[in-house]
Amino acid sequence: MTARRFPSGALDLARAYAQHAFSARELVEHTLARIAADDGRINAFTTVTAERALAEAASLDARRASGAPLPPLAGVPFAAKNLFDIEQVTTTAGSRVLADDPPAQADAFLVRRLREQGAILIGALNMDEFAYGFTTENHHAGPCRNPHDTTRTAGGSSGGSAAAVAADFVPLALGSDTNGSVRVPASCCGVFGVKPTYGRLSRSGTFPFVASLDHLGAFARSVDDLAAVYDALQGRDPDDPAQTPREAEPVGAGRIAALRVARLGGYFDEHAGDDARGVALEAANALGARETVEYPDAAVARGAAFLITASEGGQLHLPTLRTRYDDHEPLSRDRLIAGALLPAAWLLHAQRARAVLRRRVLELFERHDVLIAPATPVVAPPIGAAWMDVNGQRLPVRPNLGLLTQPVSCLGLPVVAVPLRTASGLPLAVQLIAAPWREDLAFEAARRLEAAGLAYVPAFSGATPPVEGAER
Amino acid sequence: MTARRFPSGALDLARAYAQHAFSARELVEHTLARIAADDGRINAFTTVTAERALAEAASLDARRASGAPLPPLAGVPFAAKNLFDIEQVTTTAGSRVLADDPPAQADAFLVRRLREQGAILIGALNMDEFAYGFTTENHHAGPCRNPHDTTRTAGGSSGGSAAAVAADFVPLALGSDTNGSVRVPASCCGVFGVKPTYGRLSRSGTFPFVASLDHLGAFARSVDDLAAVYDALQGRDPDDPAQTPREAEPVGAGRIAALRVARLGGYFDEHAGDDARGVALEAANALGARETVEYPDAAVARGAAFLITASEGGQLHLPTLRTRYDDHEPLSRDRLIAGALLPAAWLLHAQRARAVLRRRVLELFERHDVLIAPATPVVAPPIGAAWMDVNGQRLPVRPNLGLLTQPVSCLGLPVVAVPLRTASGLPLAVQLIAAPWREDLAFEAARRLEAAGLAYVPAFSGATPPVEGAER
Repeated sequence: MTARRFPSGALDLARAYAQHAFSARELVEHTLARIAADDGRINAFTTVTAERALAEAASLDARRASGAPLPPLAGVPFAAKNLFDIEQVTTTAGSRVLADDPPAQADAFLVRRLREQGAILIGALNMDEFAYGFTTENHHAGPCRNPHDTTRTAGGSSGGSAAAVAADFVPLALGSDTNGSVRVPASCCGVFGVKPTYGRLSRSGTFPFVASLDHLGAFARSVDDLAAVYDALQGRDPDDPAQTPREAEPVGAGRIAALRVARLGGYFDEHAGDDARGVALEAANALGARETVEYPDAAVARGAAFLITASEGGQLHLPTLRTRYDDHEPLSRDRLIAGALLPAAWLLHAQRARAVLRRRVLELFERHDVLIAPATPVVAPPIGAAWMDVNGQRLPVRPNLGLLTQPVSCLGLPVVAVPLRTASGLPLAVQLIAAPWREDLAFEAARRLEAAGLAYVPAFSGATPPVEGAER
Repeated sequence: MTARRFPSGALDLARAYAQHAFSARELVEHTLARIAADDGRINAFTTVTAERALAEAASLDARRASGAPLPPLAGVPFAAKNLFDIEQVTTTAGSRVLADDPPAQADAFLVRRLREQGAILIGALNMDEFAYGFTTENHHAGPCRNPHDTTRTAGGSSGGSAAAVAADFVPLALGSDTNGSVRVPASCCGVFGVKPTYGRLSRSGTFPFVASLDHLGAFARSVDDLAAVYDALQGRDPDDPAQTPREAEPVGAGRIAALRVARLGGYFDEHAGDDARGVALEAANALGARETVEYPDAAVARGAAFLITASEGGQLHLPTLRTRYDDHEPLSRDRLIAGALLPAAWLLHAQRARAVLRRRVLELFERHDVLIAPATPVVAPPIGAAWMDVNGQRLPVRPNLGLLTQPVSCLGLPVVAVPLRTASGLPLAVQLIAAPWREDLAFEAARRLEAAGLAYVPAFSGATPPVEGAER
């Protein structure tokens, strides 16, 4: 019986596993024990796929024992927001409406990608129902709690994903971001997150929310881990008609010499509280941003995202809103109904505004590689809070935590979210926004912030409790 | 004083002009005289740009006299539907609502392309208001009348364009096709027409109707003329964000050896009267079509086109429908208002259906190069007719002349319309439908029908009256 500590990061775990520092079975058992011990407090997981994880671990260990070459993420545990299909598990997308559906026949494309790279799926993660919310206050599964302060939300809608990574249950998690659902929980939970260029990653095998805005993304606790998982997720999927196949630089390379960085002012200052403006300024200074620039008509872009979301989401769920209203999440069902009733003329106006604004915003990238803005207006709000104060404006929390992310995702731009520490000690992320297909530039900026020691390091980091009885 | 006849076709005119058979001034004067003498009966033109045409003719004649090389369409008269911008002319798009707008500052991209090739603009052509209609019964400009029977409509919405070519006023005309507005009047007037792949031709400088469905196209009296004008219209336009630049075969080449042709049955038979089914069968036999195939869910595609058109059109015109209802065309203003009031959920459903159907229909082109269907359910209806009979179904004329064209354009497929002669002596066109960017295949099929002697030849063809007093 020996106590053994596991490295915390995904790449460190993969290296140590390749060097026979531990078996995959030991690591999976350790992970399952951590979740069993601590997730009652957090509520990040809705399903733990222990049996599958142990079987995959055994298979990896056998492969390693045979001397066969190991894939790059061999042994690394990960989990996925419960809108990703997991073979033999029902995809609920956080909803009671889907709870009695048959289990998925196959893994989602991105889950399959990670499995092919040797990563081991540990389970499915909590979320706002149908991804419509920014707080992961789910009335069916219960709220996901922020690992840094369990009276606060984890952000949402990928709150379980961010919390599972922040709580050190898993080093990697998959999420989705329609209007900010990766970036908001990354900000609230103090972890790194990536929302890709629209169309870059396959969405096959995931439950949709707003097809014209949905992005899948990932969370990690370091830039290198996030880059590794992001590069692993790339790949052409002939089954996803919305994917835009295109060659792009891998983001793990880090060969970029000079970065032209600017800070977004105007709307992004007005809708940011002191903490949020503070971290954006800190990041801007660290990256040598010399200019503050205007994102054209950010409020219009946000309005367009809001209307498109409401009407596409409403149209998607209208059949069950008609027949199973009581099974829908109380916090979002009326917003979905209102969305389904919007006039087509409003939706068209929003779609046109979006197309026009995209062309105007792309011009910013002629002079700047990366634009900086806060990811959330405030730090993680208390669970149950209906209202928040932003610069003296009283705003409903749940639709407005995405105030600063919606104008960006609406135009399909890629973003890396980097968590910084605020004066209160709680995290709050900055968005590092790049031109379409230039994730590599946003990752380079993230790497520099991390190297400068600015990235948020949770108080309990590295404090993974030893696992008793794990054997070599 | 000598009488002189001009060739009827565009390429013949260009050749004869290059051989000094006549001057451009003579040809323009002849054209203006023809219009002045006969367009009172047809009402194809809403503006004749005589001064500009004579100036361009003088400039071409000077160029020819200098011995400088002539562009390929040098001297060829053409005209454009009045939704194309013409420098110094107000673009009315058939509407009183725009009648007091300032004149256009520059020519539309396609008008410029033809001018650059030496073609001479003669004027602007009648249309259904805002392109919303299939009969060119315009209450402001008066109805355009069918040159083969002036009690009948010319079809629409590019009725003026088809009539001007059918009446031998000009050998080439530009039009637009959102749901059938090139193919329907080509069918009614017995001329050739092309509706390109969605996104292939620039739309800069034209008044839109339904941005997601609008195509610009052209009319001519022979396949070679149509191919020549179509190849001349190609070109990358950096000002049109909806244009999809892509290399494609020129359509004038004619190097295709084997064509796999099928006839569309099901919906396209059920919604075609005897004349229409007759010409489709005749064309199918001539092209060796061995199969009749089903176009998947054609009725759904048509419904999607109908809803998208009504709501996009309604949204576009809502401001003036609110303030200037009385100035809008009585035949379409209530349809526009109804469209603006559709729920967003319906529009989204239509947009999704369209995306799904497109993928299914594209599979047909794995086994077939060209699909054949009639362009209109019946021959040109009488002016003022509100109802028509199609296989015992009583249908409103104005929205239903496009029954057979809407399912095709909705999916962005290219079509060449070839007019045939019906038993009654009136023309009715077949659609030769190809896969996106394979206009060359549709043109090849059209060339074969023409070579087989099946294309409609108007009774008065070649009967261009001699112009007295034209000088060499």
